Amino acid sequence: MSATEHSPLARKLAAFVALSSDELATLMRLHQRRRNFVAGRDMVHQGQSDHAAYILEAGWVCSYKILPDGTRQIVDFQIPGDFLGLRSVLLQTSDHSIEPIGEVQAAEVLVSDLLGAFAQTPRLAAAILWAASRDEAMVVEHLVGIGRRDADSRMAHFLLELGARLALVGLGSKAGYACPLTQYHLADALGLSAVHVNRVLRQLREKGLVTFRDGQVVFHDYDRLVALAEFDPAYLDQTGPLLK
Amino acid sequence: MSATEHSPLARKLAAFVALSSDELATLMRLHQRRRNFVAGRDMVHQGQSDHAAYILEAGWVCSYKILPDGTRQIVDFQIPGDFLGLRSVLLQTSDHSIEPIGEVQAAEVLVSDLLGAFAQTPRLAAAILWAASRDEAMVVEHLVGIGRRDADSRMAHFLLELGARLALVGLGSKAGYACPLTQYHLADALGLSAVHVNRVLRQLREKGLVTFRDGQVVFHDYDRLVALAEFDPAYLDQTGPLLK
Repeated sequence: MSATEHSPLARKLAAFVALSSDELATLMRLHQRRRNFVAGRDMVHQGQSDHAAYILEAGWVCSYKILPDGTRQIVDFQIPGDFLGLRSVLLQTSDHSIEPIGEVQAAEVLVSDLLGAFAQTPRLAAAILWAASRDEAMVVEHLVGIGRRDADSRMAHFLLELGARLALVGLGSKAGYACPLTQYHLADALGLSAVHVNRVLRQLREKGLVTFRDGQVVFHDYDRLVALAEFDPAYLDQTGPLLK
Repeated sequence: MSATEHSPLARKLAAFVALSSDELATLMRLHQRRRNFVAGRDMVHQGQSDHAAYILEAGWVCSYKILPDGTRQIVDFQIPGDFLGLRSVLLQTSDHSIEPIGEVQAAEVLVSDLLGAFAQTPRLAAAILWAASRDEAMVVEHLVGIGRRDADSRMAHFLLELGARLALVGLGSKAGYACPLTQYHLADALGLSAVHVNRVLRQLREKGLVTFRDGQVVFHDYDRLVALAEFDPAYLDQTGPLLK
């Protein structure tokens, strides 16, 4: 089995650049400090200093902020192949918390590891910056969704984005995907109440577009769902590789 | 006059790392291709390929996305010392548009310039990554603001964030700052109508907290405004430098 088959991150970065075997070896060395995490205990706390970044290998996590009044806003979810905490690893304190959703396997990456790898292989550096840019483009889409989309198209957009991201690492297709999120996760991510989430999901199901039940998202009519969400996946930049 | 006095970016990066004269020289070489822009014409279009990034030297710009139905969401504003389009320079097409607000001077930076500078000076690379992380932390705060803050504290938070950012590059203080934004900019950034923006600003003024009029933001009671917004500037990471 090749390194790209082992590592969802290697598989994802292949959408940007065809990495050489030396570059892949450098990437795989970033995976050395493997750790396991379970639900209910944050991997990184908002306000924590000296926090590491992680490469998520298996399982899902969410990144969130708690406001002083106790309300929670989920910023995004990470799936296998995503970096965790890359944004805040250069900040003195983490600007957000990271919580496992179920069991998680992740490789701890120190800033010094990253800068060392960057100095060795500029193309790998560019690929990791690409992944970071793509992560930020998703946060921007979430901002636009909360600011400007109604609840139905916001939910549809969210489910389609997750499907496209999962497909890139071999965990989903236009038929659907396994999804460990609860309606509370959806509510905190989309700025809706859990009751509202429930109603929106029922409407999407009754229109014959998508069903989310028992840990499975099933697309019934992918194209109509895309039209409802006005989903244009260009910001996910998955049509590459740009660098050969 | 030293390079840090010439360049708002050099001044900003000094909050993260005390750059050596060689590193500053490399940074200043990124400023070679200076260009001027005027309001009403986008510097970068959403969907554009082969777009450059820019270092903003003078003037303000906004980054925004247009939805298929024509509504606009402003993602953030950039002030002198900020990168423009850094997020999307590695994506095949820009995920957003960039529009000057008034007259703007900016230095065009190609991906090859950036990667070349990174290879020469890893500490400068880390500093630019820090600036990118900080930019993303702001987008996350805007997401949280739109998702979870009421209109008054959202506006207060926004005006305080701008003030803190401007202070870092010598363009503002706890007394206030010059601000070229219109109420339409504020509305498109905060997910409010222009009428609502007008009402919120009047309320903040009548409470003796802040006035925004005739291109000037004047803080009347900075501490009470901070309390109203629950503004914690840790995510702006301005207390550094972390690297000596």
